Amino acid sequence: MKMVIAIVQKKDSNHLQSALIEAGFRSTRLASVGGFLSEGNVTFLIGVVDPQIPMVMEIIREHAQSRDQFVSSPAATDLGRSTMPVNVQVGGATVFVLPVEQFEQF
Amino acid sequence: MKMVIAIVQKKDSNHLQSALIEAGFRSTRLASVGGFLSEGNVTFLIGVVDPQIPMVMEIIREHAQSRDQFVSSPAATDLGRSTMPVNVQVGGATVFVLPVEQFEQF
Amino acid sequence: MKMVIAIVQKKDSNHLQSALIEAGFRSTRLASVGGFLSEGNVTFLIGVVDPQIPMVMEIIREHAQSRDQFVSSPAATDLGRSTMPVNVQVGGATVFVLPVEQFEQF
Ligand code: NI
Ligand code: NI
Ligand code: NI
Repeated sequence: MKMVIAIVQKKDSNHLQSALIEAGFRSTRLASVGGFLSEGNVTFLIGVVDPQIPMVMEIIREHAQSRDQFVSSPAATDLGRSTMPVNVQVGGATVFVLPVEQFEQF
Repeated sequence: MKMVIAIVQKKDSNHLQSALIEAGFRSTRLASVGGFLSEGNVTFLIGVVDPQIPMVMEIIREHAQSRDQFVSSPAATDLGRSTMPVNVQVGGATVFVLPVEQFEQF
Repeated sequence: MKMVIAIVQKKDSNHLQSALIEAGFRSTRLASVGGFLSEGNVTFLIGVVDPQIPMVMEIIREHAQSRDQFVSSPAATDLGRSTMPVNVQVGGATVFVLPVEQFEQF
C-alpha cells in the first residue's frame, strides 16, 4: 500500500477525479495553493496498492500533464485592435509516492 | 514516530478532535472532499509515537466508524403522506499510518 | 527525496513561503486548523532532496519558530484605563520529514 500525493492545477482536477473514480480509485481532495505564482491548485491523496501505482501514474499524466494551449489575447496592431492567439503552458502535475505502514478502514 | 492521516466525515470531526485532545494528541485538520459522492470530509494529520498508534486507532474507530442510522424520510402512502424511518449509513474513517524519519518542533 | 510537512502559524506563512521560494524550494500550502486552541494555521508540503533537508529546516526555524512578543493590552489600573504590554508567545512550527519512494513531474 502506498499513498500517492498528487498536486495538479484546479482546472484539471475534476476531470482527473472522474478518471480516478472510473478506474476504481478513491481519492481525497484538498484545496491548496502553490508554485512560484501561488496559483490555486488541488492536492489529491490516493491510497493505492503497489501493483496499481503505474496505472494511477498514467491516469494522472493523461489528465493533468503540462501542455501548451493557444489562448486568444487582445493585441493592438497597426490596423487597430485584434486578438492574437498566444501560446501558454497549462496543467502540470507533481506526484509523490509515500510508503504506508498500516491501513485501516472503520 | 508516525504520521497518522485519518479521513473522516465532517459530522464526526469535532467529536473526534475533542477525544484526541482529551487523550493528549495534537492534530491538524484540513478541510477536504472525497469519496465517490464527493461529500465534505476532514483530513486529520496526527503525529504519534509508535506505542500510541493502537490508542489513536481506537479513538478514531470509536468516534468515526461507519454505522447505521435511522432518519425520518417523507413518504407517500395509500393513507396520505407520512414519515418513514429510513436506514442510512453514516460515518466511516480511512486511516493511513506513514513512517516519519525526522520530527522537529521550533 | 523527502516530503517535508511543516505546520506553522498563518501569520508566519507568507514570510516563510517567500523565503522558501528565494532559496529555490517549491511548496504547496494547505489551509489548516490545529493545536489545542484550534487556531488557523498553514500546512506546507515541500519536496526536498535529502542533502537540502538541513537548509529547509533552518529556513522554517528562522521564519516560524516560537518566540515571545509584547503586545499592548487594555488594562484597568487605580489611575484609570491604560495599556500594559503583555508577553505572549507567537509562532511555532511542527515539522515532519517523510520518506518518498517515487517522485514524478508531468
Ligand atoms: Ni478522461
Ligand atoms: Ni467521545
Ligand atoms: Ni526572511
